[in-house]
Amino acid sequence: MTRLWKNLSGLVLAFASSIALAQQPMIVEKQSFTLENYTTHGGEAIEEVTVGWEAYGELNEAKDNVILVTHFFSGNSHAAGKYTENDPQAGYWDAIIGPGKAIDTNKYYVVSVDSLVNAYPNLPSVITTGPASINPATGEPYGLDFPVVTIRDFVNVQKAVLESLGVSKLHAVIGASMGSLQAIEWAATYPDWVERMVSVIGAASLDAWTIAGLEAWAQAIKLDPNWNKGNYYGAQAPLDGVTMAQALITHGAMHPSIFNQLAPSQETLPAEGLKSVDNQLPAAEWLYSSSRERAPLADANHILYLVRANQLFVAGHQETLKEGLNNISAKSLFLPASNDLLLMPYLADNAAAHLESMGKDVQLETIDGPWGHLDGIYSIQQKAERISQFLSQH
Amino acid sequence: MTRLWKNLSGLVLAFASSIALAQQPMIVEKQSFTLENYTTHGGEAIEEVTVGWEAYGELNEAKDNVILVTHFFSGNSHAAGKYTENDPQAGYWDAIIGPGKAIDTNKYYVVSVDSLVNAYPNLPSVITTGPASINPATGEPYGLDFPVVTIRDFVNVQKAVLESLGVSKLHAVIGASMGSLQAIEWAATYPDWVERMVSVIGAASLDAWTIAGLEAWAQAIKLDPNWNKGNYYGAQAPLDGVTMAQALITHGAMHPSIFNQLAPSQETLPAEGLKSVDNQLPAAEWLYSSSRERAPLADANHILYLVRANQLFVAGHQETLKEGLNNISAKSLFLPASNDLLLMPYLADNAAAHLESMGKDVQLETIDGPWGHLDGIYSIQQKAERISQFLSQH
Repeated sequence: MTRLWKNLSGLVLAFASSIALAQQPMIVEKQSFTLENYTTHGGEAIEEVTVGWEAYGELNEAKDNVILVTHFFSGNSHAAGKYTENDPQAGYWDAIIGPGKAIDTNKYYVVSVDSLVNAYPNLPSVITTGPASINPATGEPYGLDFPVVTIRDFVNVQKAVLESLGVSKLHAVIGASMGSLQAIEWAATYPDWVERMVSVIGAASLDAWTIAGLEAWAQAIKLDPNWNKGNYYGAQAPLDGVTMAQALITHGAMHPSIFNQLAPSQETLPAEGLKSVDNQLPAAEWLYSSSRERAPLADANHILYLVRANQLFVAGHQETLKEGLNNISAKSLFLPASNDLLLMPYLADNAAAHLESMGKDVQLETIDGPWGHLDGIYSIQQKAERISQFLSQH
Repeated sequence: MTRLWKNLSGLVLAFASSIALAQQPMIVEKQSFTLENYTTHGGEAIEEVTVGWEAYGELNEAKDNVILVTHFFSGNSHAAGKYTENDPQAGYWDAIIGPGKAIDTNKYYVVSVDSLVNAYPNLPSVITTGPASINPATGEPYGLDFPVVTIRDFVNVQKAVLESLGVSKLHAVIGASMGSLQAIEWAATYPDWVERMVSVIGAASLDAWTIAGLEAWAQAIKLDPNWNKGNYYGAQAPLDGVTMAQALITHGAMHPSIFNQLAPSQETLPAEGLKSVDNQLPAAEWLYSSSRERAPLADANHILYLVRANQLFVAGHQETLKEGLNNISAKSLFLPASNDLLLMPYLADNAAAHLESMGKDVQLETIDGPWGHLDGIYSIQQKAERISQFLSQH
């Protein structure tokens, strides 16, 4: 009887603790990494680069179970898990990163790094170096004296983080949007490192239409008189410009299918809107007021530098795109979103077709959903099985 | 022999003059129309409204051969023909308006009217009334004291022009983009007038996504410190804001297929772009510099008022869209463009489906082409036969 009770209670306890484990979020921690005397791809010196990074899972002894996750424009290295148990929101790809998930942290050591010139340096969880950082030479923020950086620089800083851990090989690199640019740049520049590359809502280079579209995000900031050629530190930040830039980004990243579900609709003449062109209509107010709330967390110059890094992108940064792509030896998986209006699916289609024509191992599957570009984040669960399979292919 | 020579030379002359006729442009003239004491749909008074208008063909005695052409956001009433023989460019729909063309000026009297608050009041060929006009009460430009106007107001002013000609019936109304809003507004508000309605790259109402997209055109202007809440007359005009607004419009109106053909591409790192975020990249420079050239012809406040008129649009301006559409008795033809990113084809699809569900006579056919929204202008020839047939249906 005592024995039975013990066995039963043991079972109950084991069962309860497995429930607790399933419900318990993966608790993660932002770490900091500093690199002295970094030279940019453009040949400029930065005395000190400090970036944040996160890791999920355990690095194995052979140090060959590493998956690098590279983040999107408005994102940071918080790809999965929570900082505390009561953290209201998990990292952006928590649906596919964690124990037993598509990117299985029981198998892989998953690393993510805050980009240089991260758009949100005022978020407490972001550690980055950019125009808002103090220039050691002057003791003042760099402003536009910070050198222009490229996607290659993001990759090189990530490489330094990995090397500091003794890593010299990536089981895979995976990223969405701007993260996809970093992923393919890794594969094109350091082919000996990269075994697998997953490009989500991505591109191999930016075309004229996309470059000109991103320009609007920059122009919005430059129009704000508070921008003052980048010298606004210690003064009023160009929050109106940042608000507009963010509104353009959000609007472009969303397909009408979802936007029209979330934003207020209007059928009759809105009285305020009819009174003055200076009153906003409900749908615009919905977009711009939420953007205004987030604006103080961003840095205007950082957004300009991020826009530029994206605008300058061509995989491998060689004389031609072909040369860059030709260097790739990784297996590639492209996951464009069918309703994407920001990095339209033809960009991934073209990249995959290019690689295929070179005899590379390349796969492509489309994410369907109402979000448009954001399906690469919010609908990624749809491709969990596919990603998991791809990661275990040899 | 003399007789033969006479006959031959007669034939030659006739042939030569028919060639000359075919090559000779239709010469057209901008006329002016003034309306005293206009009351807007919103209930505000405008002491004097003056607008330009053009007509092609001859008004018949019964005055029942009138086709009204309503123009798009950046356009004006110059829909066809040339002002002089050496005029380098014909009106925007010259491909389908003229003698023997789809909208045959041998049969129809084609009328077009410059809209209120026309975006380009500084173009010599545009006559309009808006915030840049002199307010008779003050002797100064209205600025933001000009009342907000709606698509209904554009229609009401056109109606006054037609009534001044003794016209009380439209064989058809046809318009592209913002012109399509006026066309369907005509059909919904004055059903006794309108026998046929053609909506090219159009919509029955603006949805939240499109309203929020258009908001960027306004925000660009409002960010420019020279805008000064609309009080810039006699001072520096907000040309930077107008430049950005126009660039957004052009970019949104073009599909990547054509934009990437026309704009400079880049494969290697552009040296200037790598030097400073304040240097523009070639594709952006291409878009923004041409926009900057056109900016002095536009009026910033007029653009704000036009944006608002579009944002407020719901066909018929009743309590619900359904009520407005229900009033329509005209036969309708919708011609959305498959690659349209500005007024996406689902808007025309939804409008047609709505009308069909009400048992209305409605047709829809898609314009295919690389231009996107601009296929409604540049590829309209593709639908010439269809439009011609539609106009002769009873």
